Amino acid sequence: MSSAASGVEAEPFKLALCQLKVTEDKEGNIANAVEAVKEAASNGAAVVVLPEMWNCPYSNDSFPKYAEVLDSGDSPSTKALAELAKDLSIYIIGGSIPERLKDRLYNTCCVFSPEGEVVAKYRKCHLFDIDIPGKITFKESDTLTGGDALTVVDTRYGKFGIGICYDMRFPEMAMIYANRGVQMIVYPGAFNMVTGPVHWQLLQQARAVDNQLYVASCSPARDETASYTAWGHSQVIGPFAEVVASTEEKPGIVYADIDLKEVQERRQNMPLSKQRRADLYDLMDCRNSVGFKF
Amino acid sequence: MSSAASGVEAEPFKLALCQLKVTEDKEGNIANAVEAVKEAASNGAAVVVLPEMWNCPYSNDSFPKYAEVLDSGDSPSTKALAELAKDLSIYIIGGSIPERLKDRLYNTCCVFSPEGEVVAKYRKCHLFDIDIPGKITFKESDTLTGGDALTVVDTRYGKFGIGICYDMRFPEMAMIYANRGVQMIVYPGAFNMVTGPVHWQLLQQARAVDNQLYVASCSPARDETASYTAWGHSQVIGPFAEVVASTEEKPGIVYADIDLKEVQERRQNMPLSKQRRADLYDLMDCRNSVGFKF
Repeated sequence: MSSAASGVEAEPFKLALCQLKVTEDKEGNIANAVEAVKEAASNGAAVVVLPEMWNCPYSNDSFPKYAEVLDSGDSPSTKALAELAKDLSIYIIGGSIPERLKDRLYNTCCVFSPEGEVVAKYRKCHLFDIDIPGKITFKESDTLTGGDALTVVDTRYGKFGIGICYDMRFPEMAMIYANRGVQMIVYPGAFNMVTGPVHWQLLQQARAVDNQLYVASCSPARDETASYTAWGHSQVIGPFAEVVASTEEKPGIVYADIDLKEVQERRQNMPLSKQRRADLYDLMDCRNSVGFKF
Repeated sequence: MSSAASGVEAEPFKLALCQLKVTEDKEGNIANAVEAVKEAASNGAAVVVLPEMWNCPYSNDSFPKYAEVLDSGDSPSTKALAELAKDLSIYIIGGSIPERLKDRLYNTCCVFSPEGEVVAKYRKCHLFDIDIPGKITFKESDTLTGGDALTVVDTRYGKFGIGICYDMRFPEMAMIYANRGVQMIVYPGAFNMVTGPVHWQLLQQARAVDNQLYVASCSPARDETASYTAWGHSQVIGPFAEVVASTEEKPGIVYADIDLKEVQERRQNMPLSKQRRADLYDLMDCRNSVGFKF
């Protein structure tokens, strides 16, 4: 199943990013997502990505109301995506939805295999708590809890690392993914009208060029009437920092043909990982370092 | 002397980047550098930066020929800069020159205080060995040895970290500088016509926004007749990734007014360093980790 993991070259594939319009109507959001994924698959996409918080408005008021208990069999959002992945025989990187787990809420991404199984579940690790006075103030930690594990999905097309939005500001996470063999990092995310124009593309290009891998991001479409207005601009960046595909603020689907041989070639031309100076610094992946921590 | 280190706010200052024309004539290069630094100081610069390899052509043939023994009292390049710093009562971040130390050569940056003392010496740690077939191939390690220490300069204007060119591709170095209290990283550097257009500004903006500090780079001017053609584009990036000042490829001096309160404000608005997840990853500064390494 996993050609990438076994060291055999994975085949190229078509990636689709569904920049969805998100409203207050959860059923409508699910129906809309289903339609977009079907359209992407009908156009040949083998891996389809949804935005951060695609089933609910991005606000601390909404997160508790729209949250679902994922493993209860009673999660309409994940049920719909699981069926869809199986019917269409594609991978769905299901953006994120608010997850309720006991007395906590998480910003959670489920990844569905072409068999309709949840093969990975990633809970946003770096919560979006910022305060730029007069510009943008948001505090996810008012309602959400941060996850406690990084997540690599080993697929038939390659190894993907999952991050959500604000996670992309933390280089360590992307570097650890690269160390674990990741060839593409997927960030469902919703930057805003302050940080979007100046940092959204920059951060993705930085993660891509530093780690010589693909970076894909998927945002909700912009809604000027929402309390939090998303920047949009879902895009795919290549391992030399090139913009492979992108869009602006409107609803739509971004397609990109991904060939992970590009990753291999860039790393061969410029062998950054071999040129690191472990005598000067060392990035520890704490998953691997039990007993090393003080 | 060191207001930054003592926690007192440092005063704003004018920074100058001298994008020098570099030729095969070493004495001419020194005279040219001296003139540029004088001009910068006369325009109010308190900290003046020179380019990477400003006294010699950037080539493996040249490095041994132009190399100087720095601590011998017989280094015309550093002697000129030391006198100049003292005469003008300014800091000079002296770009880099090839340094001969016993049987080895280094790509070395000396920093001179307003008293004319060498207050820091940084030897490029990440050597420029890349091979993009048909585009750009260079192997500094054919002649040079990598340095073995990162270097922070504690000045009356703030704490500066020094890197040289290819060093900027390694996020760990910039992150360690930020951890050590650095407010501005200065990279003398000479990117080329392949990586310059796509990565020069991107990497500096990435280092700046990830670490919420200033980044300044100083390149030689472009010389289309040289075996290695520098991209130029010396620039200053602010702690929100904004381009504070820049130029194109011609010889010239770039000026920027630097106020390190900007660094403090950006870090307050978006407290990235506090939001890091030490339970998931940990960047070790090996200077501080004797006994921790396995």
